[in-house]
Amino acid sequence: MRIDIVTAVPQMLTGFLDTSIIGRARTAGVVDIEIHNLHDYATDRFRHIDDTPYGGGAGMLLKCEPVFTCIEKLQSQREYDEVIYLCPDGKPLVQSTCIELSTKQNLILLAGHYKGIDQRIRDVLVTREISVGDYVLTGGELAAAVVIDAVVRLIPGAVHDSESVLDDSFMDGLLDPPHYTKPAEFRGLTVPEVLLGGNHNAIAQWRREQALEKTRQRRPDLLDNHD
Amino acid sequence: MRIDIVTAVPQMLTGFLDTSIIGRARTAGVVDIEIHNLHDYATDRFRHIDDTPYGGGAGMLLKCEPVFTCIEKLQSQREYDEVIYLCPDGKPLVQSTCIELSTKQNLILLAGHYKGIDQRIRDVLVTREISVGDYVLTGGELAAAVVIDAVVRLIPGAVHDSESVLDDSFMDGLLDPPHYTKPAEFRGLTVPEVLLGGNHNAIAQWRREQALEKTRQRRPDLLDNHD
Repeated sequence: MRIDIVTAVPQMLTGFLDTSIIGRARTAGVVDIEIHNLHDYATDRFRHIDDTPYGGGAGMLLKCEPVFTCIEKLQSQREYDEVIYLCPDGKPLVQSTCIELSTKQNLILLAGHYKGIDQRIRDVLVTREISVGDYVLTGGELAAAVVIDAVVRLIPGAVHDSESVLDDSFMDGLLDPPHYTKPAEFRGLTVPEVLLGGNHNAIAQWRREQALEKTRQRRPDLLDNHD
Repeated sequence: MRIDIVTAVPQMLTGFLDTSIIGRARTAGVVDIEIHNLHDYATDRFRHIDDTPYGGGAGMLLKCEPVFTCIEKLQSQREYDEVIYLCPDGKPLVQSTCIELSTKQNLILLAGHYKGIDQRIRDVLVTREISVGDYVLTGGELAAAVVIDAVVRLIPGAVHDSESVLDDSFMDGLLDPPHYTKPAEFRGLTVPEVLLGGNHNAIAQWRREQALEKTRQRRPDLLDNHD
């Protein structure tokens, strides 16, 4: 997979992209991630990439010119499955979207900054709008990082222990049951007896009951989609 | 505000914390953010911070010892309002939570990695569990970054143009209306007439209608909580 990130603040993404599972996936050739700095595509004589909104109001908007120039240059080089704009008014990201995106070949992620972007960019260039949650971030860079992290780890070869991915929260529609590791007793706090025995059926049943009960208590909305 | 991040992968956060609004807020003294590397708190002779789950299954869990040692050291130095664990089975983060957290003095954010953390850490140390969305990340570091970004920008002094924060998506329970900036015509694409006039009442009414209509189409669930 290839991912192109279009952003006005590329340095926000450096640590994340070089580290951990994403860094290893890039080194291993599982994913190729390129960052494009919108400041390199400013066309007016002041090299501005943002301007004030028509009709007044606070904040600055990314202008059409640099975004069109950058994205059209990329589109002239290869075919993209999606041009995704990260914004709080996009469609909320869920695990099934991450699974779908993990099968794509080429993605562009456009990170807005300041107050947002000119609507004409959304109307013409953007094919999908994604929100990572019902809160406001200083820009789309962190949201792009979230999408990349959630998607790339699902690509075969990105995570060594691929079985681990399959029993994550949401993969079966339920929240994860409680987990315990050594020591069996820590300051008087013990591990549930069933997990210490070797009865795999009993362990599977306990985990299932715990996952159901936690989901019922915390996220009954998830059970509506669960059989 | 002071935020302490407890993590096994501190390098994931470096670019983000030094850049943009968060970097400026730290320089300006609006927020003090410290990162604590769990590897510095490993106590066993192999300096392991993770181990396999009791009862079997894929993935590794953060162990009790290093997390208890690190967090209790912090708690001996000052009083914390919350010890927040970032996890997909936590309470979904919404803008009102960000507003509430922006009024706190001292927060600890615990980022799980690998498969998660020993349940006893959650039972004893953690006061609040937050999920940034219904998807799975490689670890809690990006989720911690999301919480910090969404919260710190609400602290007075973090964003220069504080009026800009007040009319964000969600602040009034609605999605943002479309925004446009110069030029008024770009490749034949024009800006809605009303925004080019100087009638502020008409502009406010148009924006309100657009915000309502977009919310009705994309997120009718938000209207249930809106008058």
